Amino acid sequence: MKKSIFVKAALVVSLGLSSLGLSALAHADDDKKYRWRLAETWGPNFPIFGDATKNMAKMVKEMSNGRLTIRIDSSNKHKSALGIFDFVKSGQYQMGHSASYYWKGKNFNTMFFTTVPFGMIASEQHAWFYYGGGMELMKKVYDQYGIMSFPGGNTGNQMGGWFKKEINSVEDLKGLKMRIPGFAGEVLAKLGAKPTNIPSGELYTALERNTIDALEWVGPSLDLRMGFHKIAPYYYTGWHEPGTELQFMVNQKAYNTLPKDLQKILTVAMKAAAYDMYSQSMHASGVNLASMKKDYPNVQMRSFPKPVMEAIVQANDELLEEFAAKDPMTAEILKSLNDYKHQVRAWTNLSDRAYLDNFDGK
Amino acid sequence: MKKSIFVKAALVVSLGLSSLGLSALAHADDDKKYRWRLAETWGPNFPIFGDATKNMAKMVKEMSNGRLTIRIDSSNKHKSALGIFDFVKSGQYQMGHSASYYWKGKNFNTMFFTTVPFGMIASEQHAWFYYGGGMELMKKVYDQYGIMSFPGGNTGNQMGGWFKKEINSVEDLKGLKMRIPGFAGEVLAKLGAKPTNIPSGELYTALERNTIDALEWVGPSLDLRMGFHKIAPYYYTGWHEPGTELQFMVNQKAYNTLPKDLQKILTVAMKAAAYDMYSQSMHASGVNLASMKKDYPNVQMRSFPKPVMEAIVQANDELLEEFAAKDPMTAEILKSLNDYKHQVRAWTNLSDRAYLDNFDGK
Repeated sequence: MKKSIFVKAALVVSLGLSSLGLSALAHADDDKKYRWRLAETWGPNFPIFGDATKNMAKMVKEMSNGRLTIRIDSSNKHKSALGIFDFVKSGQYQMGHSASYYWKGKNFNTMFFTTVPFGMIASEQHAWFYYGGGMELMKKVYDQYGIMSFPGGNTGNQMGGWFKKEINSVEDLKGLKMRIPGFAGEVLAKLGAKPTNIPSGELYTALERNTIDALEWVGPSLDLRMGFHKIAPYYYTGWHEPGTELQFMVNQKAYNTLPKDLQKILTVAMKAAAYDMYSQSMHASGVNLASMKKDYPNVQMRSFPKPVMEAIVQANDELLEEFAAKDPMTAEILKSLNDYKHQVRAWTNLSDRAYLDNFDGK
Repeated sequence: MKKSIFVKAALVVSLGLSSLGLSALAHADDDKKYRWRLAETWGPNFPIFGDATKNMAKMVKEMSNGRLTIRIDSSNKHKSALGIFDFVKSGQYQMGHSASYYWKGKNFNTMFFTTVPFGMIASEQHAWFYYGGGMELMKKVYDQYGIMSFPGGNTGNQMGGWFKKEINSVEDLKGLKMRIPGFAGEVLAKLGAKPTNIPSGELYTALERNTIDALEWVGPSLDLRMGFHKIAPYYYTGWHEPGTELQFMVNQKAYNTLPKDLQKILTVAMKAAAYDMYSQSMHASGVNLASMKKDYPNVQMRSFPKPVMEAIVQANDELLEEFAAKDPMTAEILKSLNDYKHQVRAWTNLSDRAYLDNFDGK
């Protein structure tokens, strides 16, 4: 909808405001162009995660016929990969793209809207968000900051990480220097590991020089380009991030200035881009896993032995109970997550899992 | 975007067409209202499937500010549940909502865009549609009819059906009268079963009166309301529809009349509604499976014994090979489906399946 200021001005001049009444004013408002900015945690041209923001902005621009455009600033531009929450809260940026669990230092309860160790897989979590009360709980947590938070794209089940040595017992975790940020790091720390966080650009060197013994990143979709398989041959299956959902954030006041149709265009575009990112992650994981197996046949896929898994599950449960005891909101979210998982998992087991077990030999 | 004819006329009169040039005309066109109709296979208030069309139409109306509205006619209105393809092809309806495999009598290759026995699960199939070449193949098949076909919502993995007696061997399939339409019925017929199709309204009575010995419908999300669990206690896990994707259809000529922004609004709304339907199916399946277990503890969940599964897999492979030999397009689609499944399934097994196997005891 392109309409020049000239035409609007001419209208008002030639016909006079009185004969047009509110109609022309409302119309002038409708035609207003909104130029928004989005800050993302990722660097420029970051695959998949960065595609989600580009896809969203493209859909918004095309659906609104250019009435709402969103400029994307990557971390090289705004220089603060983990400043996205504050950018959106203050209104410096109208939107952000990041991950809710990065804000657990500000509010522990934000953590639950990304993924939790031993939590739901992507399909289950989407059902929880949109039909099982998840969106309502997320709103409860974010309302106080004037931020609207939405699912921002799922990576799928993340791998447990790259290890230089095999993990054969709980003893092997003791003293293990591993890059594993967030709550999962705290779980491993309870079992004697030494979790650290290291910026992505330094990860390869840290692993190569034995500053760390292991690290987790994402999965085949994004790990292959990092090269870890060349120096840490054991690739463990996941436990700590079974369905990592990224996050779109919108400043509530900025949102309120949009006409209703642009509000809807924005929310539908965010939802479609988020869902699409999960499909893209599935695709890239399949393609890259196949390359990895072909080009690096020495990579050893492993799952932790049962006693190690049991110890991690127990440490996780104990830690979550401690947090739930401290904050009723934590307890409320945890109960929702656990009850929902219990219910939907029975279906996953009867459907996709039974099907894979019956018809796809490992 | 509400603009009265009066305002447009006044503009033209007072300023003259010459001073406005094409701008006002283009604007008048943009404001045109499109009133479309969609015919769906389902009856009125059909849960989940019917919600997908309502959600899509609501998103379109709100995003377009009423410039494109879509009236939904259910089967009680148009009286032809399986006439949707022809309605859209002829332009009698601009849109339809149905399932692609219903058109296999017109073109066998339409069948592959819903689901195939032993094919991909929903997450894998979405990756294939949007990132693995599936949409391009679907376009190749539908272009000749002047129909645009899009994913229309996934039911998730469908259950193998309700059986009055247990299936313990391939012998038990011989003479088994089962309501199982489509290609899966042909597979079972190869093993001696007597597949039939029976309209949904007559299914319960047919099962009760032993006109049939077994039937498949969808899964807990939609089966519970049908009451089959009261008369056929064995509920078998799925093999024939691992990720049933419904279908939106759009008449190509009608689509071409829409301005670019409405075209984009329509396609994004269809995509978001389709993805959402899968989340809703997951949710309803979890909720209804829990009710079923609580209220009908005598329902026996079963998987076919290994020799029965192997016989069905073999019959399916043989049948598909026969069809692929007859038509190069069939061969092309099958190769794409099988290659893609092989690739993405390695990832599903390493991620979600390993995770479920490791951390969720059956």
